[in-house]
Amino acid sequence: GAPGGGYPQQDPMYAYFLNIAGQDGQIDADELQRCLTQAGMAGGYKPFNLEACKLMIAMLDRDMTGKMGFNEFKELGVALNGWRQNFMSYDADRSGTIDGMELQRALGSMGYRLSPQALNAITKRYSTHGRITFDDYIACCVKIRALTDTFRRRDTAQQGMVNFMYDDFIQCIMSI
Amino acid sequence: GAPGGGYPQQDPMYAYFLNIAGQDGQIDADELQRCLTQAGMAGGYKPFNLEACKLMIAMLDRDMTGKMGFNEFKELGVALNGWRQNFMSYDADRSGTIDGMELQRALGSMGYRLSPQALNAITKRYSTHGRITFDDYIACCVKIRALTDTFRRRDTAQQGMVNFMYDDFIQCIMSI
Repeated sequence: GAPGGGYPQQDPMYAYFLNIAGQDGQIDADELQRCLTQAGMAGGYKPFNLEACKLMIAMLDRDMTGKMGFNEFKELGVALNGWRQNFMSYDADRSGTIDGMELQRALGSMGYRLSPQALNAITKRYSTHGRITFDDYIACCVKIRALTDTFRRRDTAQQGMVNFMYDDFIQCIMSI
Repeated sequence: GAPGGGYPQQDPMYAYFLNIAGQDGQIDADELQRCLTQAGMAGGYKPFNLEACKLMIAMLDRDMTGKMGFNEFKELGVALNGWRQNFMSYDADRSGTIDGMELQRALGSMGYRLSPQALNAITKRYSTHGRITFDDYIACCVKIRALTDTFRRRDTAQQGMVNFMYDDFIQCIMSI
């Protein structure tokens, strides 16, 4: 994230941000995990999925520091609220989890057109005992979005097909 | 994993396996995490990286159930010991962590030939405050191996280049 200087001191979010960010004025994956766990975002006392925190930071981290500044933090808050509302609209019984079919419908509503095989592979990977928690849902949404962005950037002819050299493949997938 | 019937009752590992596996006689990612955390594999009281557990099960899970039977569990034990010895040979001061340069040398010793850019992206993604813990190291090793296998299977002409259709790309990366 960009350095945090020059923000309006009257923004109530800024004090909250500084409190989480600590001395360096930036939020890393561990700090984000602590913040989302304390906010009860994972449900109960379970820590929020650390992988999802790393994915979210990687998604917003345009200057590639592995940390978030205040603007990125606010941007993440907006994205998280959107995902949470979407998740809750599928979690009819307010159990804090959705099932595989609901995940597949949620992905469809976000505009992803995937084969049943791909949808089943995704469902299996992100569910525990057949249910998907909010933090696993976030990890799934962020990852599929990052992979789709990566694919589109390389699919310049818009043919739904890309070429990867080995080193480029490893670099771009390992950093997501 | 395959069903667990017909194993020699005298194998001392089998009682240990059954104890972890519980009623269904299979080990899932949560059970593996608990087992590796209790074994002190993550160092201190920190829970072992759940993502690494999912990756390890996906690596061995040839019948695609998301769980491990006894044979797969023994196979994982062998692989884990190998990684642990390799990790400890780089962890000269026995701190339980290695630095980015040591990770890059470890990957080189496993036969991966990667550009400095790819190595830097990997190091950044798997380190916390510049250090790599054993469970993050495992997550990194298992993932790069799975991605390399995926790439090789598709690189039939052995030219170091593959074509991906969008759906296939999402399916194979999202299930790793």
